Formats: sequence, structure tokens, C-alpha cells
Amino acid sequence: MQAHSSEQDNGESVESMEAEQAEAVSDEKASDKSPSSSSPSNSNGGGIQAEAPSPSKTNQVSESDILKERFAKLLLGEDMSGAGKGVSSALALSNALTNLAASVFGEQSKLEPMSEERKERWRREVAWLVSVTDYVVEFVASEQKGKNGTNMEIMVTQQRKDLLTNIPALRKLDAMLLSTLDNFKNEQEYWYVSRDAEESEKGVQRGDKWWLPTIKVPANGLSEDSRLFLLKQKEEVIQVLKASMAINAQILSDMSVPDSYMETLPKNGKSCLGDSIYKSITDEVFDPQQFLSTLDLSAENKVVDIKNRIEASILIWKRKMNTKEAKPSWGFTVSAEKREMFEERLETILLLLKDQFPGLPQSSLDITKIQYNKDVGLAILESYSRVLETLANTVMSRIDDVLFADAAATSPTKNNVPSAGDEPAEKMSYAANTPTSATLLDFIGWGVEPPPEAQVK
Amino acid sequence: MQAHSSEQDNGESVESMEAEQAEAVSDEKASDKSPSSSSPSNSNGGGIQAEAPSPSKTNQVSESDILKERFAKLLLGEDMSGAGKGVSSALALSNALTNLAASVFGEQSKLEPMSEERKERWRREVAWLVSVTDYVVEFVASEQKGKNGTNMEIMVTQQRKDLLTNIPALRKLDAMLLSTLDNFKNEQEYWYVSRDAEESEKGVQRGDKWWLPTIKVPANGLSEDSRLFLLKQKEEVIQVLKASMAINAQILSDMSVPDSYMETLPKNGKSCLGDSIYKSITDEVFDPQQFLSTLDLSAENKVVDIKNRIEASILIWKRKMNTKEAKPSWGFTVSAEKREMFEERLETILLLLKDQFPGLPQSSLDITKIQYNKDVGLAILESYSRVLETLANTVMSRIDDVLFADAAATSPTKNNVPSAGDEPAEKMSYAANTPTSATLLDFIGWGVEPPPEAQVK
Repeated sequence: MQAHSSEQDNGESVESMEAEQAEAVSDEKASDKSPSSSSPSNSNGGGIQAEAPSPSKTNQVSESDILKERFAKLLLGEDMSGAGKGVSSALALSNALTNLAASVFGEQSKLEPMSEERKERWRREVAWLVSVTDYVVEFVASEQKGKNGTNMEIMVTQQRKDLLTNIPALRKLDAMLLSTLDNFKNEQEYWYVSRDAEESEKGVQRGDKWWLPTIKVPANGLSEDSRLFLLKQKEEVIQVLKASMAINAQILSDMSVPDSYMETLPKNGKSCLGDSIYKSITDEVFDPQQFLSTLDLSAENKVVDIKNRIEASILIWKRKMNTKEAKPSWGFTVSAEKREMFEERLETILLLLKDQFPGLPQSSLDITKIQYNKDVGLAILESYSRVLETLANTVMSRIDDVLFADAAATSPTKNNVPSAGDEPAEKMSYAANTPTSATLLDFIGWGVEPPPEAQVK
Repeated sequence: MQAHSSEQDNGESVESMEAEQAEAVSDEKASDKSPSSSSPSNSNGGGIQAEAPSPSKTNQVSESDILKERFAKLLLGEDMSGAGKGVSSALALSNALTNLAASVFGEQSKLEPMSEERKERWRREVAWLVSVTDYVVEFVASEQKGKNGTNMEIMVTQQRKDLLTNIPALRKLDAMLLSTLDNFKNEQEYWYVSRDAEESEKGVQRGDKWWLPTIKVPANGLSEDSRLFLLKQKEEVIQVLKASMAINAQILSDMSVPDSYMETLPKNGKSCLGDSIYKSITDEVFDPQQFLSTLDLSAENKVVDIKNRIEASILIWKRKMNTKEAKPSWGFTVSAEKREMFEERLETILLLLKDQFPGLPQSSLDITKIQYNKDVGLAILESYSRVLETLANTVMSRIDDVLFADAAATSPTKNNVPSAGDEPAEKMSYAANTPTSATLLDFIGWGVEPPPEAQVK
């Protein structure tokens, strides 16, 4: 027995007519914002729109229509069949933030302010996704003055601590990054030439960036002011980059390691690390920097591969130490102390790698953590910090493009041009003029407690 | 390493100041709509609000703030810790609709239109929840005229069939119910007296409804017109009641039986039915009506109990027939034919019970189905039809209250007063003046296909 309905048959009031019209309008609005959306005109917020479809109303409707669509798709966990076979809310939100960033920023191919429209969209839709964290709360004790002046302690809900501290930090970093781009709105001394232009017209572009426009600077390079301006902007971006990296690393380490990952690990760390690395790690003497120099870090995928193997073996050894296995995990028996030392060495290497290669793709451990994480708060913190890290990296790289073109102009003999455009080198290039992280800490106010009124709700 | 931030420390533009103000405003707005909400002022849509907090803007912000709160809580699956240990999106939506109905309608204690504010809230928030189904789609083939006039078939997405047909039906029933209540806005011949009034002042109220206001009618009862008006309204409500019951039953039967329910079932149907029922069901001759008369249906819980036992044993027998058990499930061996006959008898009883006791609480099978259902579409159809069923039942009961008072006035000797207020009897009382369901089918247009433009998107 099935219930059907058509708009033909009746018993229907003028009201619903109005509603249908209003819906027709709002559907248009909704669909030009999001072509993918399929919203049958015989549904979708009939009630409210029936009231009085005034311009302001319909305008408002179209905003909440986009909002409804976004959240509906999150609720469906990307399973549009509705069967609920989709991903968790956490992963859906994480993917939504990643995709939003990709579609808004794409490849920021020039140093120029974002268009108002893109900026507005970014701010609005990030705010929507992040707003979910407003309702992730915990109980905390709070002092209250009683009528008779006595202090009493009551429990109140407040936003979960990690969100209360990190969300405002990320919002600030976000704002900094966008305002840095805005600083480039004024006339600059350099300019871009399409990569399709005449060879004679073309400017400089670092070897591996063929898909980007080329850059022209005055014959004898940029003025001192202009160069200092660029370095100052780069400074700003590096602050954002380091801060978002730090937050992202923190969040990822807060995520638990999925069983499915542990199951994929080999029995012992040696096979996982490979003989050479294993050998140097277990050597009596160990110099991290010297060790790094022995590794082949010429390409990202090689660095990631090493990172994967190190992360895996750390976990293998941890597991062994917990499950106090009788059978020795090494060719010979190793004391717990020794193992811990080896583990610390590996941790050091990870830190050094992270520091040298900021924009590095995620390791398989991180990817698996994100896939299996069910915590909505962590999902948003991780994805938000990750996309900010990526964007900061892109902007920094665009600044380096110009600095490179300038250097090329001032010293035409390529040999003493800084960082002749191989990715890792470029990524490292910020290390030089980076402030001590202390400055950074002060800057985004780490360790400073949020104001009480913000804390207690 | 933890990232903290306070609004004190700086490097911040006027923009964020504006933002905080705007947020402060919108938080107020949000929170007087929903006291439960806890939204820290240092988050929550900063970006958009920073633009230009004009009255219209903030107004709009406050609507989307409520929207964001509702959907955020759905995404959290009611687990405000954010850990993702909450309920599925499907159950979260189902609960949201149930709670919304409860808080908007409460006990509709009088026959009077809903306040505009409650009506608006109901329409708006139902529209929000139901809008999720706009994005539950399936692929269907659609004929397209090619340039050269040839027909070609392409695949298009359209709303899932069950939603495409049932959602508009439910919206229509919803509208009918509200407009029926509106019909009572004019002066009526009966009036209500608070249950706290002087005994002398008090009017009539059916015995079991002590918590409701009493009803007074003119000394010699209502006028013929007024009585006919009431019966006509009751007619309308019964249409809605039967239609929403039919849809709800259909949806529940579409939901699969959870394993957890099957596991709780006893081995055989006999112990489940109890000897007496089992005996009459397995008798050679069986008259459903006569059988019903032998059951104790004096109270709701007794009816539900019988329903539970019948539903359980049907499933037990079905299971046996599938798993062709060697060991006979009855004291003696029973042929499959016999079993099927017994099953049909039980099905008949279920239908009769459903027909006699419309407002009956859900059986444990139904409750379990709803708990475990993961399908977002089914969840919304089931809960929406259920709350409409409940509301229709309440309104019908309020009409019966007045008819009862009228009957009492016209025939003071209580003995020939219809349905002297025992729940089941009252619930049955509509059966008399019910139209053939054919009328009903025509009425909400069952079997009529929705218009093509509604179908293909």
C-alpha cells in the first residue's frame, strides 16, 4: 500500500500556491549556488516561505537553503541514497572542509588579494562547518557568589577545552593569511606574464612551476623597499604556517591509532625500517643531522616513505614493550632502555623531517587516523589546521617565486641564485628567516587563558 | 603542546571587533529561542557577521544560527561530547521530529487555532528537518529529445521514490490538520471553564480527562448547525488520521527487523502467544471478531501486550518456515500450509486491533525497528507520519469532548451517553462515521503519479 500525491488534485489553499511559487524561486537560487543539488519543488521549506515571500525573505531563504543543503549532505554522510551507509559525521565534516578549501583557493597562482566573492564564500562556509564545534561541550565547575556572599561551586557546560583554545587560534591564523594576501592589492614592481605569451615577452618562473604564469621584475631587480615588503609578508605567512602545523600535529597525535592500522604492521621493526636505517639507529653513536644527510630526500615521495617506515616501527616497538614479548624482536636481545633510546632517536628524526618539509603529504598513519576518527571536534580542528597549513605554504611559495625572479635579475649567473626551485629546498627556504617559536607563541597567545566570559556559558 | 588564544592579545583588526559584537547579538537571539544552546561567543560565524551587521543581516544571522544549532546537534547524534558515540543520523532526525511535535503541540487542551507563533515555529522547523530528504536521491532513466528529434534515454537523479510520493502527502495532511484547527477561530456555542473553577461554574468533562478544562454547552445542547459543523471537522481529522496511520504502517513494514530483536524471541510461538490464544488460533474453526471478544482489551497496555505477542510469534513461525527445522515447533507436527493459515489469522487480528485502537502506543517490534533503522529517508517518513497521527488523534478527542458535553446536555440520563470516556471506546468512536477508504484514497490522491516536473530534477 503506497501513498501517492500530485499537485493537481485538490482541497488545497492559496497558501500552498504561494508556497510553491516561493519554493520555485528559492530552488533557482539554491541551484545556481550548487548545481549538484536536486531539490524537488514539491518539498523544501514550504511552510516558512508560504508566510510572505518578500524580497528580504526570499533572500534569507536562499541562504538557509544552501545551509540546509550543506548540512543535509553531512547528515547523509555523503551517502545520497539515504541508506546511512556513508561516512561518520566526523569524516564528512573533515572532507567538507578539505573540499571547500580546494574549491575556494584552488591554485593561488599569483600574489594578489582574493576576490571579495571568494573571500565571502570562504568565511561564510568555514563559519558554518566550524559552528558545529559550538555545541561540543563538557561540564566544568564554576565559582558562583551566592545571595549571602558565600562562594558556591556549580557545574556549567562550556565548549570542550581543546576547541575553546584552538578554534579561536585557527580563526586568527585564517584572518592573518587573508589579510596578508590583501596587502598585495597595491601596485607592485613585479608583474605576471601568461605562460602562453611570446618567449620574448615571458618572464622568469622556477623550473618545476611550468603551469604558473611567469614573473617579470625591473631589469635591475626590485627596489630595496619592495624586497623588504616581500620579506615582511613572507615573515607573516611563516608565522601562520608554523602555528597551523603545530596545531595540526598536536591534533593528529591526540587521535588514537586505529586497530586496522596496527593489524597491517609487520612483526618487527627491523624489516620495517630496512637494514641501513635500522643499522644507523641501533649504532652506539648517533648524530641525527649526520644521519639525515645519509638519506635520499631528493623527492617528496621518498621523504614520505621514510616517514611511514619510521612511524610504523615506533608503533611496533611500543607494542612490543607493552606486550612484553618473550621472543626478542631484534637479531639479539635488546633491553627496554636500549629500545627506548632507539625510539627517541626515531622521534627526533620525525621532528627534523617535519621541520624541513612543511608541506609534506600526510603519512599513511595520519591518513588512517583521519579516516577512522569519530570525534567531530578533532575532525574539524585537524582539517581546518591542515587546509590553513596548505594555503600558507602556497602563499609562501608564491612569494618565493617573486624573490627568485628578483634574485635571477640581480645576479644573472644562475649559480648563486638561492634555492633554484627544487621543492624540498624551497620548503626549507623559510627556515633561515624564521623567528624563534617563542615569538610565535607570544604572537598567537599560547599559554594565555581565554577571557572568563568566553570560558563559562 | 597546546595552542591557546585570548581576545585580549592582539594583532587584530576592527573587523574582529565588529564580529564579536555581532556574535554577542546573535548569541542572545539564538539563546532565547533555545535556552539549552551553549555557544561560546569567541566562535560562531565570525566571518560573515564581520561584514556589516545591519538589522536585516543580524536578523538573518539569528535564523541561520538556529538552523546551525539544530543541524549541529543532529550531526553530533545527541552526543554533545563530540566523541561520536551518539545515535545515527536517522535516529537523531526521528527523535528531533518527535521532540519538536511534543514541544509545539503539548496537550492541545482546547478546540482553538494554534497561536501564529507556534504555527510558524512548527512549519519552519519541520521544513528544516524534512528538507534533508530533498537530497536523498536515486538514478532514474529519463527520455530526452535530441537535437535531431530522436528520443534518447539518459540517467538523471531524482528524489527517492518513497520520499517523492509520501513527503508531499504528509505535508498536505499537516496543512489540513492545522487548517482544521483554524476553523475553530470563530465564536462557538460551547465554551471552556478552568478545572479549578467553582463546582457550580464547572461544565462537563469525560471522567478520565480530569486534567483538561471542563466544557459548557447551552442548556438544551448545541444548535443543529453547530453540531453538524463539529461532525464535519471530525470528518476531516479522521481523514488525516487514517492517512497518516496508513503511511506510518507502510514505512514501519518497510523497515527491516533488527537481529537484536530476533535474538530476544523465544524458541517457539506457543509459549509466546500463551495457551489460550494459541489454542483458539490453531482451532479448526476461527472467527476473528468472535476471537477478539474473548480478549481482555479494557486497557491500552493490555492491547499492546497482545500485539507484541502476536507480532513476535508471527516472526518465530516465519523463521521456522525459512530455516525448515526438523524438530517440530508445536506439540505435534504441523504442515507448512497449516502454519501459513495460522499466520494469516494472526495478521488479521493485528489489522483489526490497529483499526480499533488508532492511537495505540508502539509495539516493541516497531520501537526496535525505529531504534536500529539507519535509513534517513525512512526515519523522517516514519516520525513525521507518527506525530501527525498523534496530533490528529488529539484533535479528534477534543472534538469528542464537546460532542460528549452536548450529548450529556441533551440526554441528562447518563446511560445513553455515547462512549462514556473510556479511552479505547473513544478511539473506536470514529469508526461509525468514517468514509470508505476509497474516498480517502481519492482525497489525498493515492495512485496518482506526481507531475513530471516534480519527478525529474
